Amino acid sequence: MKLATYKDGSRDGQLVVVSRDLSQAHYATGIATRLQQALDDWNFVSPQLQDLYVTLNQGKARHAFAFEPRQCMAPLPRAYQWADGSAYLNHVELVRKARGAEVPASFYTDPLMYQGGSDDFLGPCDDAWFGSEAWGIDFEAEVAVITGDVAMGASPEQALEGVRLLMLANDWSLRNLIPAELAKGFGFFQSKPATAFSPVAVTPDELGEAWAGGRVHLTLQSSWNERRVGLCEAGTEMSFHFGQLIAHIAKTRNVRAGSIVGSGTVSNQDWSHGYSCIAEKRAIETIEDGAPKTEFMRFGDTIRIEMKGRDGLSLFGAIDQRVAGPEDLAPPAEPDEPGEDSAPAPA
Amino acid sequence: MKLATYKDGSRDGQLVVVSRDLSQAHYATGIATRLQQALDDWNFVSPQLQDLYVTLNQGKARHAFAFEPRQCMAPLPRAYQWADGSAYLNHVELVRKARGAEVPASFYTDPLMYQGGSDDFLGPCDDAWFGSEAWGIDFEAEVAVITGDVAMGASPEQALEGVRLLMLANDWSLRNLIPAELAKGFGFFQSKPATAFSPVAVTPDELGEAWAGGRVHLTLQSSWNERRVGLCEAGTEMSFHFGQLIAHIAKTRNVRAGSIVGSGTVSNQDWSHGYSCIAEKRAIETIEDGAPKTEFMRFGDTIRIEMKGRDGLSLFGAIDQRVAGPEDLAPPAEPDEPGEDSAPAPA
Repeated sequence: MKLATYKDGSRDGQLVVVSRDLSQAHYATGIATRLQQALDDWNFVSPQLQDLYVTLNQGKARHAFAFEPRQCMAPLPRAYQWADGSAYLNHVELVRKARGAEVPASFYTDPLMYQGGSDDFLGPCDDAWFGSEAWGIDFEAEVAVITGDVAMGASPEQALEGVRLLMLANDWSLRNLIPAELAKGFGFFQSKPATAFSPVAVTPDELGEAWAGGRVHLTLQSSWNERRVGLCEAGTEMSFHFGQLIAHIAKTRNVRAGSIVGSGTVSNQDWSHGYSCIAEKRAIETIEDGAPKTEFMRFGDTIRIEMKGRDGLSLFGAIDQRVAGPEDLAPPAEPDEPGEDSAPAPA
Repeated sequence: MKLATYKDGSRDGQLVVVSRDLSQAHYATGIATRLQQALDDWNFVSPQLQDLYVTLNQGKARHAFAFEPRQCMAPLPRAYQWADGSAYLNHVELVRKARGAEVPASFYTDPLMYQGGSDDFLGPCDDAWFGSEAWGIDFEAEVAVITGDVAMGASPEQALEGVRLLMLANDWSLRNLIPAELAKGFGFFQSKPATAFSPVAVTPDELGEAWAGGRVHLTLQSSWNERRVGLCEAGTEMSFHFGQLIAHIAKTRNVRAGSIVGSGTVSNQDWSHGYSCIAEKRAIETIEDGAPKTEFMRFGDTIRIEMKGRDGLSLFGAIDQRVAGPEDLAPPAEPDEPGEDSAPAPA
């Protein structure tokens, strides 16, 4: 099943079910209006959404309409948790090698994760706004899951059972703000602005055998200014699978429904696959030539991130964003919205 | 106005208005069922809650009942953001001095903050569950605010206007997990389990002149196993006020309604005020005697955190928790809950 959230002027948008080929959509009105609502009560709600999905795929849904990714918010426009791993150790090794540092032995047994902001995500086609190009604007192409409830102390196997949905993430990073921020010792903050997610989130069964061992065995495509820069295999080189990442969070606390957990930048040892973030390209240049030569992103640049299934069809739809600067700045976050719960669902 | 969230078996609980003296409460049914709903639409909802508050204080609310802090969840049982500062630099100085380290100059101009987990908070009287005493269980008594929408790039003055509610926090910390975790470079994760909050959240006007310059000029009381260990002044030594902390978050992203921002452990240069976390007591012992002698918390220990207004009455009610171990472990997080939106409000 494939789910998306349509913009309707409210903070949480409107839940829609999307056909397998991403051509058609249907409001989930009468079942659930928001994705978080479905996640809070998954065993009761998801079979009803699944029924609608089957009807939609058969072309028999009565109020179906053409699916338009540009109308999408992030599947969860805001979430109670966004925890991002660095599960592709090749990425960590590259970045460290470029600055002559070793990877600590513990990194091979204990996942590296950071807690991200989750109150204001970007939709897949929303512009990404930044105050300055000097901040070192970079994309990070990732796979992410949305969980159900996972109890404190869960094993990786138990945690993996908690995976409800998969999607893609663009974990925007401000590279030139990172060194000073990490030097303070408390992790990322200003260097990690709002993250964007793919148009649809899908249940694991949509991936067929490509979802195996808690990993997505498919190719993540990244195109920067319409030039293909990454064709990275997301499966075999993911050193920690999603069950391990979720269990890491659950060691000392419960993980509650609607938590989003990211894989970190998808990365391969074979450099011919290209890159899923510019920092990695610059690390390779530094290792090869002594200095980076690829610059970070400029205002007006575009980034497209997509993953195709084994049938060649786009699984999640594409993240397709433009980098925007202060000149383009949208009006500030909307003020309090009256009546947002009155869910008008065109049919 | 004072607001609380009553346990009702659902994830978000039921919003109640609480009388100024914390003796009476009244369900906000008909106005808003959840606190997040009120925050999402504050300009419309808060005047209605205020009207009920006035009626309740006058003893004229028709379905008032005795307020019972033990029935409370955290005012926001889950939130879209929990960002915690270290605004009392004395705390940072003490901890660093104990290990012979300097405080970087930037710490006096750039707030230190970390992004915390916000999907599963503890109520004020909920047991706090930990897997092992060897983790180094410590409380951290703090002041926290809940914000409305604050736009990216807001100044500290603009950000301060975004403060909607104030409350107390117990930011549980696992001291013996911190060194290895911070050494990984990405900040806290497992070392910061679920945070607890006070029974009620209050609007700034409830503090009168004690709310000034973005700081709370009152005394935070901490009692460990019923022994008073801290009487710390929260106002003058808060090096960064709440507007500055919120503006720090807003530098590169929007801060959305319902974000919780903490002050960090309240701490005074005059050691006679005692301490708001055990780590600080141990730092003082290390500075004075070369080694810490106070141990961290044991299973069965209690911690009570409270703040009184200038009238001597408890402002937020008390956080009053017991440390529990695996032996006491509650059943795992409840499974999906059917029908949680059907808000039954006893009257």
